[in-house]
Formats: sequence, C-alpha cells, structure tokens
Amino acid sequence: METVIYLDNAATTRPNARAVSRAQAFLDEKWYNPSALYAGGEGVKREIKGARESLLSRIADPAQFELTFTSCGTEADDQAIFCGARRGNAVTTSGEHAAVNASFRELKNRGVEPRFAPSLQDGRVDEEALLSLVDEKTSLVSVVHVASETGAVNDIFRLAALVKKKNPRCLVMSDGVQAFGKLPVRLTKDIDLYTVSAHKIGGVKGTGALIRKKTLTPFTYLYGGGQEGGVRSGTENVFGIMCFAYAAEDKFSSLQADGARARELREALFSALDRDIFARISPEEGSPYILTVSARGLRGAVLQQLLSRGGVYVGTGSACSSKKPFSAAIEACGYREDVLYGVLRMSLSPQTTREEVLACAAALNEEARAMKGRL
Amino acid sequence: METVIYLDNAATTRPNARAVSRAQAFLDEKWYNPSALYAGGEGVKREIKGARESLLSRIADPAQFELTFTSCGTEADDQAIFCGARRGNAVTTSGEHAAVNASFRELKNRGVEPRFAPSLQDGRVDEEALLSLVDEKTSLVSVVHVASETGAVNDIFRLAALVKKKNPRCLVMSDGVQAFGKLPVRLTKDIDLYTVSAHKIGGVKGTGALIRKKTLTPFTYLYGGGQEGGVRSGTENVFGIMCFAYAAEDKFSSLQADGARARELREALFSALDRDIFARISPEEGSPYILTVSARGLRGAVLQQLLSRGGVYVGTGSACSSKKPFSAAIEACGYREDVLYGVLRMSLSPQTTREEVLACAAALNEEARAMKGRL
Repeated sequence: METVIYLDNAATTRPNARAVSRAQAFLDEKWYNPSALYAGGEGVKREIKGARESLLSRIADPAQFELTFTSCGTEADDQAIFCGARRGNAVTTSGEHAAVNASFRELKNRGVEPRFAPSLQDGRVDEEALLSLVDEKTSLVSVVHVASETGAVNDIFRLAALVKKKNPRCLVMSDGVQAFGKLPVRLTKDIDLYTVSAHKIGGVKGTGALIRKKTLTPFTYLYGGGQEGGVRSGTENVFGIMCFAYAAEDKFSSLQADGARARELREALFSALDRDIFARISPEEGSPYILTVSARGLRGAVLQQLLSRGGVYVGTGSACSSKKPFSAAIEACGYREDVLYGVLRMSLSPQTTREEVLACAAALNEEARAMKGRL
Repeated sequence: METVIYLDNAATTRPNARAVSRAQAFLDEKWYNPSALYAGGEGVKREIKGARESLLSRIADPAQFELTFTSCGTEADDQAIFCGARRGNAVTTSGEHAAVNASFRELKNRGVEPRFAPSLQDGRVDEEALLSLVDEKTSLVSVVHVASETGAVNDIFRLAALVKKKNPRCLVMSDGVQAFGKLPVRLTKDIDLYTVSAHKIGGVKGTGALIRKKTLTPFTYLYGGGQEGGVRSGTENVFGIMCFAYAAEDKFSSLQADGARARELREALFSALDRDIFARISPEEGSPYILTVSARGLRGAVLQQLLSRGGVYVGTGSACSSKKPFSAAIEACGYREDVLYGVLRMSLSPQTTREEVLACAAALNEEARAMKGRL
C-alpha cells in the first residue's frame, strides 16, 4: 500500500488502534445485550455506564449534565435542535456544520423561524449581530464551538451568558464536534446542549453523544425499548461507545501538549506555502488542528485531486457536505468567488509529523504553480 | 471464563467472527470518510454501495426497492412509522416489538389515531380483526413479520395484499428484524417498508436498515450533509455496515439448512422439558429459532436468574423492553397472569448444539421442580 499523508482529520480520523484493540472484547466476549437481565448483559450495561461517566466528566460536571449516546454528531445536533427549538424563533450562525444548518432550515416547516447571524471574515460569528437576533420569542440559540471549515473558535461561554441575560428562557446549544478532545472545554451553566462525535478523535464512525443540562425536561427522540433513559431507544452500539470512551481517554491525556504541537505544525505548514498563491483564511487563534487557505483564482477541488494522486489527502471544506461547488460557511465570511473556489482545508491530528506538513506544502506549491502556469 | 450456554439469540447474537475479521480492514486501513472526494474516500463509498446492494438483493428486487442504513432496527421502525403514518389512522398488531408499539402510541400526540389489532393465542395477529380496522383514512398498516416474543410468523404478503385491496393508498410496513437472515423472504409489491437489524444475525450492534419501495416519496429523517440519499445524514457507520453485509452473506448461504436444523433442535428442547411444568406458547409453524414457553405458576424472571448462575442464558421476552413485569405482547394473546409471569424465551442460532439445548432443558426442569417444591 502506498504511504498516504493524511491531512483531513477534521473529516474523520484513523481509528485509534489502542482503543479499537481494547474494545475488541465487546465483539469477542462481552457482546451480550445490555438490556438482558443476566450477568453477561448486566456486565455490558455497567461498562456503558462507565463509558458514559468517563466521557461526560471530561468536559462537564456530571452533577449538572447528562450524556445520551447517539449514532453520530449529526443525530446529536438534530436531536438538540428539534427538541430545543419548539416555538417562536431560533438563532444560529452562518458558520455551522450542515447538520445544524440543514436542521435550522427545516425548522421553518415546523413553524419555528430560523435566523442566521453573519460571520466575521475569520469564521467566527458576529457576536453583536447574533445577539441582536435574540428576542423574547427565541427558544434556541446554536453557536458552533469550533467552526469545521475554518477552525475559528467562538467564545460560546461568553455568548451563552449574554444570550441568557437577554432571554433567560432561551436554550443555548453548541456543536462541539471539532472541539471535543482538541480544546480544553468545561461546560458552564449557560450551555444547555452540547454535541460531540467519536470518529473525529480516533473513535469509530457511528457514535456521537448529546450532552444536556439535567434540568432540561427530557424528550424522546427514538421510541422503543427505553434505552438511554428513554430518550433514545434502540440496542446500544456497545463497540462504538467503548471505542469512543477509550479514544477520549488517550486524547485527553495529552490534550494540551498535542494542541501546542499541532499549532506549531499548522504554522510550519502555512509558512511553507507560497504566499503569492495561498491566502490564509483560518485565524491564528483558532483550532490548532485546522488550517484553511485559498489558492486564489484556482480550483481547490482540482488541487485536492492532483494532490491525492500523489497520496496527499487534504479537504476542501466539510466532507460531510460535498454537494456545493464551494463552501457556504466560508462564503458567509464575505469572500469573493475567486477565493471561495480556491479553498483547501488541511486538518491535523496528534500523529501528524513535521515531515508530512512540509511534504504537503511542497506538493501544494508545486501543483498550484503548475496550474497557474497553465492558466 | 466459564462456558456459557447462550439461548437468547433473539435479543442479540455473538458477532460472526469471520464477518468482524473481514470488516477489520475498515478500522485499520479503509477508514476514510466516504464523503471525501479523494481515492481513499471514494473507495469506502464504493464498498458501502456494494454492501447496500448485497443486503437488499437478498430479500428484494433492487429495481423496485432501495435500502437506507440506520443505526438500529428501532430507528428503522421509527423512520418507517413516522414517515408513513402522517394522517388519519394507523393500524398495527398487539404483538409488535417495543420500537413499533411505542412509536404507534406516540402517533396519538402527532394527530394520527393508532389502532391495535388483537393477537391469536399463538402470537399471530387476528387477520380479520386487523382488516376490519383498516378504512379509507388508514395511512399505514404495520404487521411484524416474526413476532419477537413468540416466534409466530404472520403472513405479511397475503395481509398486505388484502390491505391494499381495501385501501390502495395505505402504506404497508413490516418489522422484519427477527425474519431477516432466518426465514426465506422475498418482498412483494404490496410491502412498502421493511426493517432489518444487523446484530440479530451476527452483525454488530449499531446498524440496521430500512428497505423501501422506490415509488415512495423520499422523506428526510436526519438533516445534515445529505448521506444516504439525503434521507439519513451523518457519517456512515462503515464498520457496522460492512459487518452487516458480511454476516448476511454467511447467514443466507445456509439459510434453509440452518432453519431445518434449528427447528429440529427447538423441538428437541421442547420435548426435553417437563410437560407438567412447561406449557408451549410458540406455534410449531413459527420461527424455527424461537421457543417460548411458560412455567405456569412460577416466575420466569426468577428461573432466568437461577439458570444464569449456572451459565445458561435464556430470555423472558424482549430484552429490548425489560421494564414490565411481564410481556404485553404475550398478554395480548389472551393468557392469564399465572402463565404470563412464567414466560421464558429460548432463542437459537445456527451455532446452537443439541448438547446445549438438552443441557438447558435439564437445568430448566431441575430449577423449576425445585421452585415448585418450595411453593
């Protein structure tokens, strides 16, 4: 197999081999139904409980919050939005992941007015504009923690406090998929709903979670046997849940050091890019793991294809929404078309090496120069 | 580790080691995001397509039907019901799994009248009663294919044709979770929606599927990046999907022979039970894999506990709904309380041996006789 330089870790990550190997026991031996009332089933139920407590306690006080496992980040976002935005209007940003954006657009059909706050050029939400959209009829405000397409970090805690000041009954949610296991996070009392995903931090695809303030009235999302406290019925994805907990264990054990190292590599990558071609979109104070640039006047998608032939994998935006010619979230930052078409996202993991980012930059420079020459 | 005699295969099955081992490649190497536009991602997307076609073609004509992957059988049932029953009334049986039963009860809150047809004593639906509940305002009829608590098999194809004759616009769905990979099934044109689950046939927990007539107007269940043809967004559970397809490959390769053997073992098990204590609930012409009996006058749950101490795992009904003191589905068959409390379900797999069923019968006889002696 050819060696791949993988810089699309915001789309998905290589499953953490240690986590997968530890969770293998849930395929080989501990595969009983966690609802079964004999020792085998009860053992699995206890392990899920342990995984739930372990994951939750990494970013929230288990006395104040609870965690429901879902089948992905998208399901967690959908759950939070449709259960939180039940009346009046709901406010979000223009930099959300498709899971939030599409759900907000659907709210209209359900009698709730969706409102979208504009983005600043660096990808963060325009806070003042967001707050001006919140009124006494707002039932939910949703602000992405780390914008997946730019890496911009919103100060969700300060924003949540300001929203609550304006409308104490309004719920505040945040899509934390690109933040969990990457930034130090501690949920404050002003955050009501927070969503996370396993496969962005070395877990496997098919598991996410919704973290929710305990004071929220529980709602039912999947009807059935009453698993997940009745909120989300269906036999639990035990293997996925255990992989998630084990992967998080590894991530959080070196979160600060990994972040500092990633920031350094991100800057090394940007420094090695040809400034005559590549313009930076990601803010320096954004996620250390994401560098979004634009090869102005060129097609990012074409560059991505050319690079992939040489075994260098980069993104062009959110892999979860590859239908549009360019990213709506970045368009919302106010860039012109020649910038939008040229967007490329390089996203790192703690396993990314200096050699890899430099090789990626060299390949980008070479291909982009050749493309420019052909124009 | 102690040796366990596992006769609760209707609750969940031991993952098929061959299927898991084949799917391991999707954790180790082919872990790219299937939405990613480079070779790695496109390769995974092709594999999902192959799994989808393979699973679908086992029970339906791919020209007439399509298959959406879900996170479990419960989600598939919920999707089918909430998308199918949008107006008027909806008719189902009293022998459904909790995923169908609870969703039907929820329909009331959504302005659709749920109607429940009574069961016959052997667990099948009373067909005449069911048809009498169908009228011109019925938008959905849902009839479980194999009732999970008794193993009774409903003739869904004949019923569907009769329903369509009465109301051609009415959709017909069937929960096929206990039938798929166990009975020979070929969906007819009268079936609009059919649900299946991976972990009941050697796949892993966390994957199910909804099979749907292509002529049905598509609906969106999870909003986001547009995966699964826009019906069910969210990054695909690639490992679970591939395990499902591989497990089904094995199941369908010996479906008839496995069924005949299971039927023989089921009868050997029943023959070895003390008739003074155990009364049969499962019909002989039901699923070969399920034998439900009642230890009249005793507590099935207590017997289950006593057996589990000796490493014999049996069920007491649907493990997916363990809140009630006894099974509502079996109650609906018209049994008295002394029978209901005594219910035990033994469910077999193709790996079950004659020694295991005989050892289970011996343990049941011994524990039940001892319990009776103490009364």
